[in-house]
Amino acid sequence: MKVLAVIGCGLIGGSMALAWKKAGLVERVVACDLNEENLRDALELGAADAVTTSVADAVGDADVIAVAVPVLAMEGVFRAVAASMKPQAMITDVGSTRLAVLEMARRGLGDKFSRYAPYHPIAGGELPGVRYAQADLFNRKAVIGTPTGGMDPEVVQVLGKAWEAVGASVSSMTPELHDEVFASVSHLPHVLAFALVDMIAKEGNAAIKLGMAGAGFRDFTRIASSSPVMWRDICLTNGPAIAEELRRYRRSLDALQEAIDKADAASLEACFENAMKNRRGLNFDRS
Amino acid sequence: MKVLAVIGCGLIGGSMALAWKKAGLVERVVACDLNEENLRDALELGAADAVTTSVADAVGDADVIAVAVPVLAMEGVFRAVAASMKPQAMITDVGSTRLAVLEMARRGLGDKFSRYAPYHPIAGGELPGVRYAQADLFNRKAVIGTPTGGMDPEVVQVLGKAWEAVGASVSSMTPELHDEVFASVSHLPHVLAFALVDMIAKEGNAAIKLGMAGAGFRDFTRIASSSPVMWRDICLTNGPAIAEELRRYRRSLDALQEAIDKADAASLEACFENAMKNRRGLNFDRS
Repeated sequence: MKVLAVIGCGLIGGSMALAWKKAGLVERVVACDLNEENLRDALELGAADAVTTSVADAVGDADVIAVAVPVLAMEGVFRAVAASMKPQAMITDVGSTRLAVLEMARRGLGDKFSRYAPYHPIAGGELPGVRYAQADLFNRKAVIGTPTGGMDPEVVQVLGKAWEAVGASVSSMTPELHDEVFASVSHLPHVLAFALVDMIAKEGNAAIKLGMAGAGFRDFTRIASSSPVMWRDICLTNGPAIAEELRRYRRSLDALQEAIDKADAASLEACFENAMKNRRGLNFDRS
Repeated sequence: MKVLAVIGCGLIGGSMALAWKKAGLVERVVACDLNEENLRDALELGAADAVTTSVADAVGDADVIAVAVPVLAMEGVFRAVAASMKPQAMITDVGSTRLAVLEMARRGLGDKFSRYAPYHPIAGGELPGVRYAQADLFNRKAVIGTPTGGMDPEVVQVLGKAWEAVGASVSSMTPELHDEVFASVSHLPHVLAFALVDMIAKEGNAAIKLGMAGAGFRDFTRIASSSPVMWRDICLTNGPAIAEELRRYRRSLDALQEAIDKADAASLEACFENAMKNRRGLNFDRS
């Protein structure tokens, strides 16, 4: 691998460029984005050696092509990639939903699908754009491969080893399990955080409330600063799994509403206690 | 003020002791707690110069008495404080709900109520116990006074100035507004975070899900590590305001459920966009 093309040069695409260059995995990065400010930032930060707004121009010389655009934009990008890539180039993407993107890759890549292997890095940040990119963003973070039939096992392996080389802990699961897992621990929390800030901002005394919020609110709602388009696309492409988790969560809140209305101390404490014990047991260091 | 008695020597009581001593507001701290481990830790960390499990012993010599126990335990503590305090000592508390504690103070303190002024520091941490106490916990944090009729204005003023001396930004509001504001930006988020972790911990694949959770989940659920008893008491003593916010939030989730079920991109994006704009506009530094 000499040349990496990053299609979609935001926080993840830019961090991937910095990390893969720093680890010596690639010598040169070509970044493609529709936003010219992102491209200027990428050059300035050393995340790209050349920039373009054309997918065809970006991939012509690339050995690895990483697609890092909002997931609903991926099918069009895959189609443009397949039309202009070198036959032996490898393609990957970093999208947060897997089943829908898998179908897009099959349709968009056509006979180049065998050169594709998807890896979802469980890393990010709420502020979008390459200017927040970090070379060590993936260090001690999980990266989930979701290989399926039709992908060349060598491509799957080479790309997995590349992610390990930037410090990530790589594992694999089926796309179905991936989408179920991240509906619970990522997609639903984002929806809940957006919903809370949206609601309070529309209430009476919103300015006082938001002005008085402390560190608990700060951390709970950090992810509500995330890109609306990225998360709209995630809700649209992992709809059934997110819908099921949200339905289950709403039933939990129905029960808590009843407990609060009835001042049912025992039910409240049982829920809080179980949550506390499970939460305190977690370790987020994936080294 | 020479002697501070801290009744309830947890994270907040212990941090208050450290901060007030460091700022030279008091010379000596007597800590009272039912948990002897907390008392040993308090002595070891310098948060207390003397310790006791008896409220009467703790307050006998105190010029300021700070009550920092879970809110449902406050009335009994106030009663014990009133029975043993010096007539000119001042009493304060740091509870997270105001209307219910105000009534407890009136009943528990009796004719000592005039020596009372409540201040709620908007600071804390999810891990309880004096061993997590920090002398600078209140620096650049908000502290809300909720003075009402019957409190000596001099007590209100002296205690407010003391909080300013440890770096806090002190303001005041009615107890009614306080309880409405913190139901939105503190109590509801805690309930939501507890509910999410409790739910996921009971699901199929819970271990995989919790093991794969990333930084978004980590921050969203940080407050689910908080003390179950403290938060049970908050739900029981600010029930109507929390119940109203929760009802409103459940209606928001009903709308989002419909949007996800129907793949209604515009509604999802409008909610996420409004949340993102409001969240990015917040500043949590209260200097």
